[in-house]
Amino acid sequence: MTSPSVKARFGSSLRKLRDERGYSQEELAERAGLHRNYVGGVERGERNVALENIIKLARALSVPPRELFANFP
Amino acid sequence: MTSPSVKARFGSSLRKLRDERGYSQEELAERAGLHRNYVGGVERGERNVALENIIKLARALSVPPRELFANFP
Repeated sequence: MTSPSVKARFGSSLRKLRDERGYSQEELAERAGLHRNYVGGVERGERNVALENIIKLARALSVPPRELFANFP
Repeated sequence: MTSPSVKARFGSSLRKLRDERGYSQEELAERAGLHRNYVGGVERGERNVALENIIKLARALSVPPRELFANFP
């Protein structure tokens, strides 16, 4: 798996979970204590998200962190 | 969940999976294309591991990345 698809895959997983909850990027960012632009960058596959922000995003979505990796083989 | 326990929780998960496969830290690092000291730091809960290294570690352990988060609620 080449690097870009890892970040893109994570980004699409985040977007899917966010959409399922009907949150805007802004709302998710606020819940996670992160900047809206940062969340947008993650969803566009531009960010190599670190562990602590992965957990913040999972908590903001009320899912266990492993859900964010459900689309990884 | 405060930050230290996130990194520590991930580190113990990594160590458990590594032990289960009978790999040394050195062997895991080599398989993952990472430095042994880095892997040691992750296991000690000192590293805020980023996405691409999480995937490298999971691939080196032949597990889907979500397994590394199995011990996260």
